[in-house]
Parts: sequence; C-alpha cells; structure tokens
Amino acid sequence: MNASQPVSEPRVQADHPAIDELFALLAYGEVAAFYRLTEEARMAPNLRGRINMASMAAAEMGHYEVLRDALAARGVDVVAAMTRYAPALENYHRLTTPSTWLEALVKTYVGDAMAADFYLEIADVLPDEVAGVVRAVLSETGHSQFVVSEVREAVAASGRQRSRLALWSRRLLGEAITQAQYVLADHDELVELVLSGPGGLGQVADFFSRLQQTHDDRMRQLGLA
Amino acid sequence: MNASQPVSEPRVQADHPAIDELFALLAYGEVAAFYRLTEEARMAPNLRGRINMASMAAAEMGHYEVLRDALAARGVDVVAAMTRYAPALENYHRLTTPSTWLEALVKTYVGDAMAADFYLEIADVLPDEVAGVVRAVLSETGHSQFVVSEVREAVAASGRQRSRLALWSRRLLGEAITQAQYVLADHDELVELVLSGPGGLGQVADFFSRLQQTHDDRMRQLGLA
Repeated sequence: MNASQPVSEPRVQADHPAIDELFALLAYGEVAAFYRLTEEARMAPNLRGRINMASMAAAEMGHYEVLRDALAARGVDVVAAMTRYAPALENYHRLTTPSTWLEALVKTYVGDAMAADFYLEIADVLPDEVAGVVRAVLSETGHSQFVVSEVREAVAASGRQRSRLALWSRRLLGEAITQAQYVLADHDELVELVLSGPGGLGQVADFFSRLQQTHDDRMRQLGLA
Repeated sequence: MNASQPVSEPRVQADHPAIDELFALLAYGEVAAFYRLTEEARMAPNLRGRINMASMAAAEMGHYEVLRDALAARGVDVVAAMTRYAPALENYHRLTTPSTWLEALVKTYVGDAMAADFYLEIADVLPDEVAGVVRAVLSETGHSQFVVSEVREAVAASGRQRSRLALWSRRLLGEAITQAQYVLADHDELVELVLSGPGGLGQVADFFSRLQQTHDDRMRQLGLA
C-alpha cells in the first residue's frame, strides 16, 4: 500500500473500469440468487414458506435493477458484462444445493447476510457516488428474518438438526470464500479495487476475519452456535 | 338488478366479504404467475430472456404485496384466504404449459394483458377505496413489452410459427375463460360482486366480449392476427 495515501480517501476513481466489473459481479449474484431461491422454494412445506422465498427472490431482482441502471449510466450493458461471473456464482450454488427445507432456509439467511456484509465492506473503499449505488442495494436486504424463528424452533427440538445445520452453515461460508478467491484470482482489476482501501492487503485479511465474525453472530441468532 | 340503484354507484359496500374473496383470488393469481414465469423462463435461449422473465415475476410479487397489505388492513390473513383459489389458477397454468420459448413469451404477454383487462374492469364496479387497491396493482403491469419484438420477428420469418402461435393464444384465452367460469360457479359472493355493477348480468356478457376484443388487439400487436 501507498503510505502517502490519506486514510480517508479511496484510491480508485469513480470511472475506474474495476467498478463496472464489481457491479457486473454483484448483478449476476442477484440474478443467480433469484433463480436459486425460487428453485429451492419447491422444498417449502407450505404456501407461506413458498411466498416468503418468492418475496426474497423478488427483492433480489430489485437489487439487480439498481445495478443494471448504474451500469447503463456508465455506458455498460449489464448482460454482456456479467456473463463472465456466471461460473463462480453458479458453482457456489451448485456446490451448496440444499437437501432439506431447513438447509434451504439456512442458506437463504447466511447468503443474504454474507451479501450484506460484502456490500457494506466494499462500499467503504468506493468513491462516494459509487458507494451510493452499493448502499442503495444494501438498504433493500433484510428480507430473510422470517427464517430465524423457523430454524430456531427446529434446532431447539433436535440436537441432531442443530449439529447438522451448524455443519451446513460452515460449509456455506467455506464455499463462498473459495469462490470469492477464484473470482479474485481471475480478475486483477477487482483485486486492485479491494486493495485500494486504506488498509490495502491487510484489509483483505481483516475482511475475511470480519466475515467469519458476523457469520458466527448469525449462527448464534439461528441457535446453531 | 335493482332498477332503483343509481347507475354511477356500485351496490357492494367496501366491507362486503366478496372484496376479501376478490383480493384473495387476485393474490393467488400473482403468486402462481410468479412461480410459473420463473419455471417457464428455463426455456429462454439466453440470459437476457431469463432476466426479462425474472423481472416480470418480481413485479408479480410486488402486486401480491399490495393485495396482502390490503387484506391485512381488512383483518384477513392472505395465505389462509387464497388457498381456496389455488386449484383454478394451478389448473389454468397446468393446462397451458408452454412447450417452446415462443409459447412461453406469448403466454406471458397474453396473461399479463388479460390480468390487466380484468383488473381494469373489476375496478369499475368497486367502491372507490377498494378500487384504489386494484388500480395500484394495475399501474404496475406492463412489464411484458419485451415480448412483442421477439415474437413479431419470429412470426414474420415463419408462417408456420404464426399459425401455431395464433392457435396457442386462442387456447390461452379459452382456458382462462373456462377457469374463470369455474371460479364463479363455486363462489356466489364473487358472482354477486361482478353483478353489482350498473349493467348487472349484461355486464358479464359485455366483459367477455371486451376481453375477446382486447385479446384480438394483442394478437395483432404480436403479428398473430
């Protein structure tokens, strides 16, 4: 990192192409989440569960539209730009296909929380006008609260379920980190963006620590700690 | 009908239980459309098509939420109320499962248009405060314009496709009318609501004529007339 850089000022400019890449990655993430949530909702034991999942999925498309419009304003076609991020996100979902409704609920909750953490962290290293887009998306998350009571009830009734879902949630975090690392390995401009914050490389390590920490908090909320 | 009833004033009061039933029927229609659009989007030849379908599906959940909130304000739980309308709507979708992407596109467009016609017609017989809810949902439709250019292009290139899709669109209208009649046969309170407008029974016949007319207009827009 550059020691002469003021701590409060991000190094990347608003027109940096890495920002197009970041928005494209996030946009594909939203579309992939839409289709996966909708597919996983088939496991819902009742109409109410299916509707909760559908509402969350619909919120993902709202996020997508914010990112699509931001890219359009930057002269970038979202569909063309985001295609290159499909493999990482599809791999994450393929490797974390739930086999029960409770696994689907935990995945929804953990995925939503990880996305929110990521959005919040990344907003801090972005120029203000760009951070505004990311925060606008973030302000729309939090649709997954319906999960908490259902999971808590199930794990209070069964220690076996608790162990099983705790393992599952660790696997979700692990796969997300693995895919994030593949994305960074393939996209130097994103690495540059992540490293552009005041903490540089140290910040990346801190980021993963904080992700682990907030993940642990979520596990406690779900009764899985 | 009651000849002493002023023509401009609907007979049904805002607290009439038929309005709960109507909202419940419309709410299930939105949820069913969400899941069907998402499923039919699998046939899309590319990511752009899948995203257009996902955006439409997300809009259906927005409509659902307007209706859910209106029912909650009336002290009615949407999920419990709408379950009885599941068979008619699921039957419509089951009997009109598209076998190609073009059929899926036409179904999306025709279904969206029929829903808009129905919402517009029904709003006219409702008390103002209730009609406001229906018009709020209606103002959110119109996400299916992306269909027009794709279908026109396909049918301009192939007379066989045109004949096939014209037949398909007539079948969609026919199945919708059939299922609407089943719903009315099972729900006297909805019949009462439909008959409460200034035209009474005559209005029902007029309604189906207008539905046919606007359906013909849509077929022309798609190049299928």
